[in-house]
Amino acid sequence: MQPDGELRGDGVHVGGDARQRFYDSRGYGRPLGGNAISLTPLEAAHLLFRGDLGAVTVDGETLGFEAFFVHAAAAGDRFAVRFLVYSDLRDRGFYLSPTREGWPGHNRQGGADADFIVYERGASPPDGAIAHRLRVVGERESIPAAGIDGTTLAIVDEESDLTYFETQTADPTGGTDYDPPADLAGVLLEDRVVVWDAPAGLYDRGFYGRPLSGRAATIDGALQLSLLEAAYLAERGSLRLDETLALAGTTDDANGAGDEADDAEGTADAIRRRGRTVEGDRFARRLRTYTDLRERAIVPKTGFKFGADFRTYLDVETVEDLPHSEHLVRVIEPDHAFVPRELSLDVRLAGGVRKRMVFALTDASSIDYRSVARITP
Amino acid sequence: MQPDGELRGDGVHVGGDARQRFYDSRGYGRPLGGNAISLTPLEAAHLLFRGDLGAVTVDGETLGFEAFFVHAAAAGDRFAVRFLVYSDLRDRGFYLSPTREGWPGHNRQGGADADFIVYERGASPPDGAIAHRLRVVGERESIPAAGIDGTTLAIVDEESDLTYFETQTADPTGGTDYDPPADLAGVLLEDRVVVWDAPAGLYDRGFYGRPLSGRAATIDGALQLSLLEAAYLAERGSLRLDETLALAGTTDDANGAGDEADDAEGTADAIRRRGRTVEGDRFARRLRTYTDLRERAIVPKTGFKFGADFRTYLDVETVEDLPHSEHLVRVIEPDHAFVPRELSLDVRLAGGVRKRMVFALTDASSIDYRSVARITP
Repeated sequence: MQPDGELRGDGVHVGGDARQRFYDSRGYGRPLGGNAISLTPLEAAHLLFRGDLGAVTVDGETLGFEAFFVHAAAAGDRFAVRFLVYSDLRDRGFYLSPTREGWPGHNRQGGADADFIVYERGASPPDGAIAHRLRVVGERESIPAAGIDGTTLAIVDEESDLTYFETQTADPTGGTDYDPPADLAGVLLEDRVVVWDAPAGLYDRGFYGRPLSGRAATIDGALQLSLLEAAYLAERGSLRLDETLALAGTTDDANGAGDEADDAEGTADAIRRRGRTVEGDRFARRLRTYTDLRERAIVPKTGFKFGADFRTYLDVETVEDLPHSEHLVRVIEPDHAFVPRELSLDVRLAGGVRKRMVFALTDASSIDYRSVARITP
Repeated sequence: MQPDGELRGDGVHVGGDARQRFYDSRGYGRPLGGNAISLTPLEAAHLLFRGDLGAVTVDGETLGFEAFFVHAAAAGDRFAVRFLVYSDLRDRGFYLSPTREGWPGHNRQGGADADFIVYERGASPPDGAIAHRLRVVGERESIPAAGIDGTTLAIVDEESDLTYFETQTADPTGGTDYDPPADLAGVLLEDRVVVWDAPAGLYDRGFYGRPLSGRAATIDGALQLSLLEAAYLAERGSLRLDETLALAGTTDDANGAGDEADDAEGTADAIRRRGRTVEGDRFARRLRTYTDLRERAIVPKTGFKFGADFRTYLDVETVEDLPHSEHLVRVIEPDHAFVPRELSLDVRLAGGVRKRMVFALTDASSIDYRSVARITP
């Protein structure tokens, strides 16, 4: 015979042997005096759903699961989606506590904006080891990127299916060891730079640019650099724009390179201006990310085919013998809020090509990395 | 000994046996009188690149490939990216004509906004069979969705790598044969609807909703419907919201269901209002798409895990024996312009899970479908 409960204030009071039956052995509720406990409405609904609680009395009416569920959901606060996640994790064998004043573990969120503290399997509230600080998100909510660090996201889609994402601060480092030469000269052509006589190592060892070649012909040493690669090389003093490589009277004046572009600083200015013209503010954020990755001895190349800003190679010896690329990097602003569906798209694609999805949060000066991966709890 | 050319106006004039050597046998340029031909600067640059043309004289100066390329690119008009695509297709064995007044085939674009007419392998300008009406797009340009129908897109990314997408009008049809019953009653709970006593066929045969169940328990017949599923069922007269399923005094008044929601029309209104509240105008466009797909005897389910609006099942007999889902559908407005990187993301993911990427262009009344797939020409 299952016990019944009674809604008192914002908790469901259960007497009898409830403490032993629900709290001590399975981590539900918080102990009151004697053997009584108080359950959150969510916990009570779950126990009704399982048939472990018989009914809950609300304002003198005795409610079964359906009526109590509708009653509790009518209060809003995402009751329905939180119920789905709570039940799923219970089914997976976890004990978990709602982060609610007075409930066990409510002070263990560790700064995260969590709905539940999920204990490791075999661990119990209030002091057991924590597996997840879990945040429930409906697919129509948005998720501030800056706040996800270290939380587990449980996203409930419009058809009530669940997807779990683990988030972490990332600190990628590589082992690529190549110094580009200091005397490269290039021509700015629309949104790329051509270096006609690049030394072989620039591409083969540093993985800068792409040879201007086809099946039928290769112009020996001609490399096309992206604007990001060119700006980075110019900023470190390796590249200058050389307008004498163009015909007199036919230079691309719109590039703003002008007279000062034949030194490295003028070159960097000219390329950044072009980047800003074709890409707006995004260019500075992407250049910040490109530069930071290079400084971490990582080689960033375009992630276009994967819909990302970059794919990264941690340890390039030669382009002939390229390692698997480890990360996809998307550059976002620090105040970016994820749309769950777009996050799902990025993370799914990265998983499908055995890469880790990393977001670079940058305003073009500071930069932080967050990785997001799908998990099965 | 290769012939030389001379820039005259906007064409490069080549004399000698140029007609036979370049036009008749390989489809370059347009014939002038006698054996002379005129090449576009793009064609001339490519022939210089291959070493098939010795030099081109421009204003009395004799230019090799590099100087001529810089000269031609300085005129803008995406010369560099068009050159990359032109060269790649030539290397792949295609003859192709720039869509330029007076050049062969220039009137064969068929309404498309094409840069090149690409002939089938073995076919020649001006009348040969057409393989692609090809449009060159730099990754920083945008692509109006309404205009892509039947074109092949050659996207040049920032590192000068190429991706080809084939676009088509799509007309998906399915063979799912299930009529939902006319007497479903549900409760609107935030952004979903629960039907407590759904007949088994609603889920098992019609693939509507998702059972409210866990590993430990199933409430027999309880289905959670998405707002889209519920709105569709209400619009066809199958579902009404029944507030008596909720406790008196605890109904969710914010749903606007009120008194009139106990008939199907009032139910449809109430659900659409809720959809608009949680999703804005997008809800009407997505409902239009959901409805159109159901009317095509296709079952749409959420595409959340793939970052899309829907995945579709063409022919559902039973949910137990579900076929592979064939399409991912993203709902966009008719005036939507694709960002190439986002298009690349969608198409890449769809390809990775063996589905076809389809875009539903709808303003919530009319609807058109376009499919996009990556190809290797």
